[in-house]
Parts: sequence; C-alpha cells; structure tokens
Amino acid sequence: MRRSVYLKILVPIDGSEFSFKALLHACELAKLLNSKILIVYVAEKLLPVNLDRNEYSKILRKFGKKTLEKARKISLDKGVEPKIIQLEGNIVNEIVKCAKKEKCNLIVVGQKGFGKTLRFLLGSISNKLANKSPCSILIVK
Amino acid sequence: MRRSVYLKILVPIDGSEFSFKALLHACELAKLLNSKILIVYVAEKLLPVNLDRNEYSKILRKFGKKTLEKARKISLDKGVEPKIIQLEGNIVNEIVKCAKKEKCNLIVVGQKGFGKTLRFLLGSISNKLANKSPCSILIVK
Repeated sequence: MRRSVYLKILVPIDGSEFSFKALLHACELAKLLNSKILIVYVAEKLLPVNLDRNEYSKILRKFGKKTLEKARKISLDKGVEPKIIQLEGNIVNEIVKCAKKEKCNLIVVGQKGFGKTLRFLLGSISNKLANKSPCSILIVK
Repeated sequence: MRRSVYLKILVPIDGSEFSFKALLHACELAKLLNSKILIVYVAEKLLPVNLDRNEYSKILRKFGKKTLEKARKISLDKGVEPKIIQLEGNIVNEIVKCAKKEKCNLIVVGQKGFGKTLRFLLGSISNKLANKSPCSILIVK
C-alpha cells in the first residue's frame, strides 16, 4: 500500500442509486484518509437499436452533465470538493484509462448499476473493472 | 456506510503472495480506521484426482495451520492482533457464511491467488465473492 494509502479515489457514476451510494462511501473514506475524489461519468457509445446516433449522444451528454452535477452536490454536502470528468466510449476502458492518467489509488464502485440493458449486454461492469483496474477496487454493497 | 466505517475486516488467506499482500493492505486500513482483523483459511474440499481423501484433508489442514501462523505473524509485525479461523468446505460459501456470522463490514482479497488449479476449476474467487459477499469487498492489486 502507498504511504498515503489512497491519495486519489476514482468514483464512476452512472446516475443509479448504487453509484451514488458508492460515492457516499468514497466521500467518508476520503475524509477519514485525506484523499482526493475524482468523479467520472462515461457516456457509453453502444447504440441501442432504432435510435439516431447524434440524438442519442446528445441525450447521454445531457444526462451525464445532470448526473455529475448531482454527484458534485452530494460530495460537497459531505464536505468533499470533487474533481469532475465526463468521458465518452467503452465504460470499462475509459475508467481504466482515466485511473491510469489521473494516478488514482482506488476505484470505488457500487455492485449494481450502469443500467439493466448495458449490464445484460456487457456483463458485470464491476467484475470487468476488478479484472482490468490498474489500482485496487472497492465494491460497495 | 456504518458510523465506525469498518468495525471488522475479514481477510481470506490461501498462502499465496496475493493473499498476504491483501493482508498487509488490510492491516494498514485497520490501523488507520481502528478496525479488527479476522483472518480466515478455508480448506477447499474439492478433491484432486488420484488422491486419498483423508490424506488430502490432512495435508490441507496442515498447510492451513502453517499459512495462518504466517498470517498471524505478518499482522502482529504490523501492530495488529488478528482473530484466526480455519474452515473446511467451498471457499466462497464458507467466507460468505463467516462474514455474516462474524458481522464483518469489509472483505479484503488479493485479485489473484487461491491456486491455479482451483481458479481454473472454480472461476475467479474474487469475482464470485464480489457477487455473493454480504458486505463491501476490496480487491487489492
């Protein structure tokens, strides 16, 4: 373990109650362990059938912005000033890339979330992240 | 998150370097967050071919005892007095039952470990634990 334990904690947010629960957990840890919080929303590029790609991207970006604003408010209410990042692409790959780039020591995720359809299509995001993550990963129940 | 964050942290140990790395990580957290540490070794009952069941159980119990002693020493060196439990049965099921019974708030595991053959036979123990665990789970890299 690094000397300062968790310098930077990455929390992927998808708007689900599970991701906000994970964020609350991460904020508690951050306060106790003096860590920074980085909140990330990834707009998955996988296109559901019968939707216009541009229209869909627009909806996702709008939802992402709203979700990140809610997440920022939750963090600030807990006394943690977070850094916010909005990304587009494959959820797992973008989170892994971001964790590397931002030198995060921990990723905190909810066990469920990331949308029922996406879970069905992509398998469990938490499990995939656990396998691919460059740093330790905390799955919050 | 519970008010005292992690009252009791369960660390499953299988003798691999990954499990001892997870134990060191758990000890650091325990010291910072004032948690108790519970170290568990589960002798998997799955019998490799061409081995006498009694002989195999004897070998496993002996290995478990030695592994737990090593784990206890590692914890004590880190300034943490652990509780030690040796179990027999299915690894994931026994850990989940133990976490419930002992009211653990966190399970800390290494990403790899639990033996190459068993991993091949049983799939990823960490992933299964992540799905079945009654509490949050930290996968240490």
